[in-house]
Amino acid sequence: MSTHDTHLRVGMVGYAFMGAAHSQAWRTVNRVYDLPARVRMALICGRDIGKVADAADRLGWEAYTTDWRRLVESDEIDVVDICTPGDSHAEIAIAALAAGKHVLCEKPLANTVAEARAMTAAAATARESGVRAMCGFTYRRVPAVTLMRQLVAEGRLGTIRHVRAAYLQDWIVDPQFPLVWRLQRDKAGSGALGDIGAHIIDLTQYVTGQRISGVSAITETFVKERPLPGGSSGLSAHVDGHGAVDGHGSVDGHGSVDGHGSVDGHGSVDAHGPATGLVTVDDAAVFVARLDGGALATYEATRFATGRKNGLRVEINGSLGTVVFDLERMNELEFYDATRPAAEQGFTRILVTEGEHPYMSAWWPPGHIIGYEHSFTHQARDFVEAIAAGTDPAPSFADGLQVQLVLDAVTRSAEAGSSWTDVEPTLEVVAA
Amino acid sequence: MSTHDTHLRVGMVGYAFMGAAHSQAWRTVNRVYDLPARVRMALICGRDIGKVADAADRLGWEAYTTDWRRLVESDEIDVVDICTPGDSHAEIAIAALAAGKHVLCEKPLANTVAEARAMTAAAATARESGVRAMCGFTYRRVPAVTLMRQLVAEGRLGTIRHVRAAYLQDWIVDPQFPLVWRLQRDKAGSGALGDIGAHIIDLTQYVTGQRISGVSAITETFVKERPLPGGSSGLSAHVDGHGAVDGHGSVDGHGSVDGHGSVDGHGSVDAHGPATGLVTVDDAAVFVARLDGGALATYEATRFATGRKNGLRVEINGSLGTVVFDLERMNELEFYDATRPAAEQGFTRILVTEGEHPYMSAWWPPGHIIGYEHSFTHQARDFVEAIAAGTDPAPSFADGLQVQLVLDAVTRSAEAGSSWTDVEPTLEVVAA
Amino acid sequence: MSTHDTHLRVGMVGYAFMGAAHSQAWRTVNRVYDLPARVRMALICGRDIGKVADAADRLGWEAYTTDWRRLVESDEIDVVDICTPGDSHAEIAIAALAAGKHVLCEKPLANTVAEARAMTAAAATARESGVRAMCGFTYRRVPAVTLMRQLVAEGRLGTIRHVRAAYLQDWIVDPQFPLVWRLQRDKAGSGALGDIGAHIIDLTQYVTGQRISGVSAITETFVKERPLPGGSSGLSAHVDGHGAVDGHGSVDGHGSVDGHGSVDGHGSVDAHGPATGLVTVDDAAVFVARLDGGALATYEATRFATGRKNGLRVEINGSLGTVVFDLERMNELEFYDATRPAAEQGFTRILVTEGEHPYMSAWWPPGHIIGYEHSFTHQARDFVEAIAAGTDPAPSFADGLQVQLVLDAVTRSAEAGSSWTDVEPTLEVVAA
Amino acid sequence: MSTHDTHLRVGMVGYAFMGAAHSQAWRTVNRVYDLPARVRMALICGRDIGKVADAADRLGWEAYTTDWRRLVESDEIDVVDICTPGDSHAEIAIAALAAGKHVLCEKPLANTVAEARAMTAAAATARESGVRAMCGFTYRRVPAVTLMRQLVAEGRLGTIRHVRAAYLQDWIVDPQFPLVWRLQRDKAGSGALGDIGAHIIDLTQYVTGQRISGVSAITETFVKERPLPGGSSGLSAHVDGHGAVDGHGSVDGHGSVDGHGSVDGHGSVDAHGPATGLVTVDDAAVFVARLDGGALATYEATRFATGRKNGLRVEINGSLGTVVFDLERMNELEFYDATRPAAEQGFTRILVTEGEHPYMSAWWPPGHIIGYEHSFTHQARDFVEAIAAGTDPAPSFADGLQVQLVLDAVTRSAEAGSSWTDVEPTLEVVAA
Repeated sequence: MSTHDTHLRVGMVGYAFMGAAHSQAWRTVNRVYDLPARVRMALICGRDIGKVADAADRLGWEAYTTDWRRLVESDEIDVVDICTPGDSHAEIAIAALAAGKHVLCEKPLANTVAEARAMTAAAATARESGVRAMCGFTYRRVPAVTLMRQLVAEGRLGTIRHVRAAYLQDWIVDPQFPLVWRLQRDKAGSGALGDIGAHIIDLTQYVTGQRISGVSAITETFVKERPLPGGSSGLSAHVDGHGAVDGHGSVDGHGSVDGHGSVDGHGSVDAHGPATGLVTVDDAAVFVARLDGGALATYEATRFATGRKNGLRVEINGSLGTVVFDLERMNELEFYDATRPAAEQGFTRILVTEGEHPYMSAWWPPGHIIGYEHSFTHQARDFVEAIAAGTDPAPSFADGLQVQLVLDAVTRSAEAGSSWTDVEPTLEVVAA
Repeated sequence: MSTHDTHLRVGMVGYAFMGAAHSQAWRTVNRVYDLPARVRMALICGRDIGKVADAADRLGWEAYTTDWRRLVESDEIDVVDICTPGDSHAEIAIAALAAGKHVLCEKPLANTVAEARAMTAAAATARESGVRAMCGFTYRRVPAVTLMRQLVAEGRLGTIRHVRAAYLQDWIVDPQFPLVWRLQRDKAGSGALGDIGAHIIDLTQYVTGQRISGVSAITETFVKERPLPGGSSGLSAHVDGHGAVDGHGSVDGHGSVDGHGSVDGHGSVDAHGPATGLVTVDDAAVFVARLDGGALATYEATRFATGRKNGLRVEINGSLGTVVFDLERMNELEFYDATRPAAEQGFTRILVTEGEHPYMSAWWPPGHIIGYEHSFTHQARDFVEAIAAGTDPAPSFADGLQVQLVLDAVTRSAEAGSSWTDVEPTLEVVAA
Repeated sequence: MSTHDTHLRVGMVGYAFMGAAHSQAWRTVNRVYDLPARVRMALICGRDIGKVADAADRLGWEAYTTDWRRLVESDEIDVVDICTPGDSHAEIAIAALAAGKHVLCEKPLANTVAEARAMTAAAATARESGVRAMCGFTYRRVPAVTLMRQLVAEGRLGTIRHVRAAYLQDWIVDPQFPLVWRLQRDKAGSGALGDIGAHIIDLTQYVTGQRISGVSAITETFVKERPLPGGSSGLSAHVDGHGAVDGHGSVDGHGSVDGHGSVDGHGSVDAHGPATGLVTVDDAAVFVARLDGGALATYEATRFATGRKNGLRVEINGSLGTVVFDLERMNELEFYDATRPAAEQGFTRILVTEGEHPYMSAWWPPGHIIGYEHSFTHQARDFVEAIAAGTDPAPSFADGLQVQLVLDAVTRSAEAGSSWTDVEPTLEVVAA
Repeated sequence: MSTHDTHLRVGMVGYAFMGAAHSQAWRTVNRVYDLPARVRMALICGRDIGKVADAADRLGWEAYTTDWRRLVESDEIDVVDICTPGDSHAEIAIAALAAGKHVLCEKPLANTVAEARAMTAAAATARESGVRAMCGFTYRRVPAVTLMRQLVAEGRLGTIRHVRAAYLQDWIVDPQFPLVWRLQRDKAGSGALGDIGAHIIDLTQYVTGQRISGVSAITETFVKERPLPGGSSGLSAHVDGHGAVDGHGSVDGHGSVDGHGSVDGHGSVDAHGPATGLVTVDDAAVFVARLDGGALATYEATRFATGRKNGLRVEINGSLGTVVFDLERMNELEFYDATRPAAEQGFTRILVTEGEHPYMSAWWPPGHIIGYEHSFTHQARDFVEAIAAGTDPAPSFADGLQVQLVLDAVTRSAEAGSSWTDVEPTLEVVAA
């Protein structure tokens, strides 16, 4: 396959935050990496004809549609990229796989275990025809995270003893922040847990090579009722770009087909104030866990950590060393190597911008940092290469299902008064 | 009361790590602070006559004894300072209080709830005669910690949403580290949990003004058998001063009367190797908790966090702000004030060395930092002032009991498969 | 002017490091910002037909040429973007301006004051016909730098007392690193001084609003002879991508038309070793300076600061506050506000990713950082807007000339034994 | 010599800031280190009988006097510790040495080169009788600084290329801060230059093992007139303990015999405002320098760096590595080792609290930090050991003289319009 005559025609569903990030990746990937195929941004899909037309123009897609079924079935499309809220993932992904399209699906894979199972089964079936499926846990491809994985895999940390993971944000601390779709269970599945907790579950399992076997959890909704978005109170203008009705302001999540701006059936209108609705997801989740390799772990996902904007922080302690990562300083990795001479031991701040570091030789000279969206370009690179090579990309849908099973255990533990809850094993999926 | 004619004659039991730290405090306190009484380092007690004589000479005590009962009953003593392992706290403290001596007792207050209750009752009784009792959670008197408390008390953080506390050390990561007294339940009561977990429990409750109401916990002993100390393998020489038979090497704990170097009944001798014994305490404890003011919390205490030497780290998120503290940088406090203009918000690294900061006007000019032992001097100051003023010092024995009740809930939860366990309330103690 | 019917056709000369960064900016700018014109990447120029064809394909240019004169004179080009080494800036820029093309010229503006003066005069003349010229000191458009400027301009720092600026790199510490064009005076003009020293001169003058009035300087060439590049020793393969013959590996500089890989006349060949040549530029330059507003300053530019990869660090102290910036953490700004209550003062780490911060509302949610190349997109945005609005972009060629005058004063001071040397004033340039 | 029968009787002149720090060291040194002699705090001297009596009582000296001549000549004194302002160092030190007393003299050694020469000559003469003299550049004994020296001496940094040193404070930023003795040339000799600049000159020469050979300097007095201290405006109460008439508030300097509170002859009284006087020393000094081993250096000493309280920061770049130190985090050293594998290189934050680190085995367990005054205890230890062993302590008076020669070169350069000025070599001092 040559770059010059092989094209991968991408069709993307959704155009909000994730849509913008994915677009930047598709646009950039061939400009930075030598790849066996050239990406064409062929078609974008959204429900609102005006908005999707604007998005196509702004983000640089060749065509647009409001019908995702047409997109997944089109002969003009090779890859379907799903950037919608979780409630539509299963339907779109399964249809796309059935139509023989390679699928990149944003995380979390689905809103429920049942959906995730169905998607994983569909992927297994499609795989037999050479169709590839990948779940978008992009943080695996932050170079510092990949480097962590390498250090663990090389045994540099020895036996893993502790995982300490938190994903801290603060965008809904204000009780007047409106009831956007991310705060509604029917759209988002869960709150901080599925949105950002899913990231640290996947990331720590990826880096350690171990899986969470059981949890004891607490979840909490601190602010139980919020103003409806888009009302006369005009709150979305107050909140710095978060919470806009079309979902653009969403923090580290996916865009939506049409933004799901409506709040169906939850609203209450007070004669003297703006309409409000019930928050039906968690604001925060904390849990302790055991990993199947023997480590103890603490996890926390919250949208109420004032001052933490995108504070994904992970520390992993092994018998020989420790690694520490903070997404707000994503170009850095701290590494403590306990095999060094005692007087020289310490946390080494590795600036992960050298040509020797994962993904970095294609970018800028050492010390010239990369940003948030670059991981999406890395993801695009690896997906294109896997398709071209006919190999399975990671994380797979089965990996996405496994994260879903952990989320499910957390939810069940929290509902059962924090009782210990084993994570259901991922059964081997047999193609239907 | 004038400094020149009032003396407080201190008798200290124990002379190891805590004994050295307390000695430095008693020696220094009148040189730095203007106090209503002058401290005399009158008498030191330990079981080994040679060692206590050496300690008296080195640490600067006027006299020494091997009989703690003589010390607590002596007419020449006003204050009894208990720096022994937890298993002897109750007996010494109760006797000292009964003898009308003011008592400063190292943390944790005791090894069991029953002992802590008895001590608290004894303190309540003695209080009626004007006798004062204080538990040595010294970290409350790190100026940055006191400043955190002030900020919370002034409402600067708003409603507390999250507590994130970890006390991380690494001094027993090496499986060849010997079975010192801190790794034996009969001497130490528990492992990382009581030794360092107690600190973060007290500190976070103090700073937030809230109490832990329930927990779900895991504890673990990663290395279940270790070489006996002082054996022919001479391991204590390998371990950089930790684990010496007389307890000097202990990390953030108390000294011991005679070091409890013996390992009674646990040892096993293999024909081909050094004698080993069973570790009977936890290496690590992790738990999630609820505070009675509505906050969610995660706690972790471990001696297996490679690279973390004295890593007490606390972050508290409120609706209006956040504070972050790290004991390895104990002169600094990070404060995020969400009421500042949006473009200027950020974590402010306050160098807590200004005359305006708690305890600091007596020390050096701004920017000239203080060290670990200074908090003990602050503790000595406040205890001397409380005695002179006839007021109750804090933390009280009842506070120490409450921490013991949390530790007990953690242990019970861990033993019951991480099931949710309420912390038993501290009943009002009525003097006997 | 509407985005949909107005295009700016860009012709870029040079395709190495700067060419790649500029290409990414031109490709991205309309995807992120709403602009009055749409950029077309029309034509790229380089001397080597094969390489420029490859670059056009890889970087996404519509066409290519090896004749820069054809490019600057083409009716199909609106904007000329000059990304070549400094020795060709003047000729290209003056020709482009004469042909009525808007010009963006990489820094430093030229290799000599005389060239810079001629360019500035040409820009002044062209300006009368509505032609715009801009010098590419992109770091002004790092959001944290722009924010620094805003804080100073608002008076938040009070009277400026000190500037402390260093640009530290380490890519030629190894004496076996080859003699690339950046180490040759005829191509590069100067070494660390012009390459990276120019950046901190411009940046600090921009932020403070003051100009350097005089200097006392030392320059040094630590390694005076180096292997020729591309020789049989194959050193370029050793040096991690730096120093490749075509200039790709250059650190924070410009690309070159054809890379200037040849080393004309400087080489010496030893019978027993590889050919070497003399380094004819400075490895490092340090100087003290006065600013015309009364501040004292220290400056340092070096390629011998082991461990500093792209360590541009600036601290500015004023009577009311201080700002600190480090390019390796370019999303952060430290701000000390001495008007805050004494107990709360400290360095506030502002994560410059909020919608309120310069340039950031178009990018990702708060806490999602941007990378090195984003500043080039900001530069492209502002240049496009200035062209559309008919206003003068900044920094102007006159600003570039003024930096050149400072560089010249530094060089003259160093040559005169560090004697104090006034910076020649930028005379008002009258259009010819 | 046995600890139990050998005493060193110390007589200290001065009782302000440095007097307090030295007292804490003398009091502590035998409690922490096993030494061949025991220190007795025998006699303290100050001009004001009431104040020196109070100081003796508070700081724990056995006796006091107002006559320093009696102190230096007393048969009851073995060591004279000089903690007065620089204008009295020479007279006291020379008399003490002549009387056969070992002398520890605070830095800078003197206010003039002539005085420093005379002192050095006196020390050389006294040395022949076994009398020891030491200059109090205590920062050499911050463990992280000693560790830096060790790394350089072991060749871990390779060839030194750059020294980057700044000592930044901010205590006189406010123009209403009064005209204390440190701002008067006749008492203090110079301003920031001699007070804190001297520290970084000594420290960097000590660490690199190289000497400054020449400088080009600027000095500045930003605020040329200030209120007289102690006047009716009561400013000393405003300034947080700085600038009190008796010198207590001085920042990183020496105390004074009687504080030199008077401002002789400089004051001017305005009918409408408080009396003011001229500032006769520098507020800030900056200079570039060459070291005799080939390194380039920048130095800066200022009291106008808002937010920097005790910001002594040093970075040293060598061909193989870099070290970075910041006194506000004095328990840490950053070390970059360029011989490590490329993907793992970075700045290692060494927490200098291990038993393997200089001076630290006697203090607390790893991670338990020390404070500002501990370096004085280390100094006391080394001085006591040198006296007992009959060896020469370092830094010697000759070292102090050499620093004075650098200060002199800086002053002369600044006075000569920043012209390059060679540092006068320290001639070998022959005992008279």
